[in-house]
Amino acid sequence: MIVDILTLFPGMFDGPFDSSIIKRARDRGLLDIDITDIRLFSGNKHNTVDDTPYGGGAGMVMQAPPILRALEHVRGRRGAAAPRVVLMCPTGLTFNQVWARDLAQEEHLVIICGHYEGVDERVRELAVTDELSIGDYVLTGGELPAMVVVDAVARMIPGVLGESASAEDDSFYTGLLEYPQYTRPGDYNGLTVPDILLSGHHENIRRWRRRQSLLKTLERRSDLLRPETLADEDKQILRQLLDAIRDIVK
Amino acid sequence: MIVDILTLFPGMFDGPFDSSIIKRARDRGLLDIDITDIRLFSGNKHNTVDDTPYGGGAGMVMQAPPILRALEHVRGRRGAAAPRVVLMCPTGLTFNQVWARDLAQEEHLVIICGHYEGVDERVRELAVTDELSIGDYVLTGGELPAMVVVDAVARMIPGVLGESASAEDDSFYTGLLEYPQYTRPGDYNGLTVPDILLSGHHENIRRWRRRQSLLKTLERRSDLLRPETLADEDKQILRQLLDAIRDIVK
Repeated sequence: MIVDILTLFPGMFDGPFDSSIIKRARDRGLLDIDITDIRLFSGNKHNTVDDTPYGGGAGMVMQAPPILRALEHVRGRRGAAAPRVVLMCPTGLTFNQVWARDLAQEEHLVIICGHYEGVDERVRELAVTDELSIGDYVLTGGELPAMVVVDAVARMIPGVLGESASAEDDSFYTGLLEYPQYTRPGDYNGLTVPDILLSGHHENIRRWRRRQSLLKTLERRSDLLRPETLADEDKQILRQLLDAIRDIVK
Repeated sequence: MIVDILTLFPGMFDGPFDSSIIKRARDRGLLDIDITDIRLFSGNKHNTVDDTPYGGGAGMVMQAPPILRALEHVRGRRGAAAPRVVLMCPTGLTFNQVWARDLAQEEHLVIICGHYEGVDERVRELAVTDELSIGDYVLTGGELPAMVVVDAVARMIPGVLGESASAEDDSFYTGLLEYPQYTRPGDYNGLTVPDILLSGHHENIRRWRRRQSLLKTLERRSDLLRPETLADEDKQILRQLLDAIRDIVK
């Protein structure tokens, strides 16, 4: 998969894309990430790429021509079919695991990092196929969101993760939050590991973990629990819980 | 504000924290970010900090002792009151702008970056005050989420943003998504700027922008529109829209 990132701050990507799983995917040739500096396409000797907004107001707006020229450049270099062009911006749809799976199907992805007060609307009209936000908070620019999207998407490309089982267990794959994990030492200042995890009884351990996942999700993110995604076993656990509560508050 | 980040991948933070607004806040002494390598606190000569999970299963779990020793170290160095200790993990509550505002009040914030299959549960029991996730997607580790939280929080520290007006206009401050922005050139390959933005009539421009914000939010993120946060003007616009739709579909 080829990912072209268009940004005014190419230096920001130095550390994040040289670590861990993204680095491994790049080294293995599964992921080809290229950072393009929009400023190189300013078309003027002062390298100006932003200007004040029409209609007034605070801050600066990123101009359309430099972004569109940078986009033409990366398109021309790849010479392939029309890529998905994602604009990272606060007004985009909220990125989630379904999006990650969808974008991982693409051969060529272009990500434009918005900055300042925003991007000239005509960039959206002329070039952008998807507008994405990573959450309901205000960030300085689209650079960190682009890294987040690339990380989540990269994990969904076949071969990137060493053990595929490791991915499937993660929160948001199963639709439930993950159960508590414990590792050595067995006793830390008197805090011990739940006995069941030391029992060696695999089926009991599986059931205990499923129940923990379900309870944690119910407590923190009940919005993730939908009847159509729950297994019969989950519904049974919830029914037991319902009965227990009814016995107390009836 | 002091931010201590505990991580297994300190190199990831090189680029992101040396750019843009975070760099300016650090240069001005408003933000003091320190990255601590958990591996230095492994307590063994192989620098091992993870182990297999009790009860079996794929992947590795981060051990409690190195994290808790690293935490003791940064606490001792600062010598101040007990800091907020945030664990970035997929099972946390969802970070948003209300959280950013809340955490910006702290003098000392510690952020622990989870990694691998997770963090030994006893770290939560003994040290963590808040568990946060930045969205419903699976990432390789808590490093990118920690950067996202620091960026959003830093913007809320008084003096960090040059123009405070610039912050207040952003999406999620006003509760609405931002209106379209345009800047020079006025005509790009025949795509022009909406006439109203060139009219010079400030009140009409303000109303147009508010209407655009409202329509964009209605279309993309209607979950953000709640009666108690809408101005009378907004409700009037929505009522007009309601009447217009009724006329069509009645």
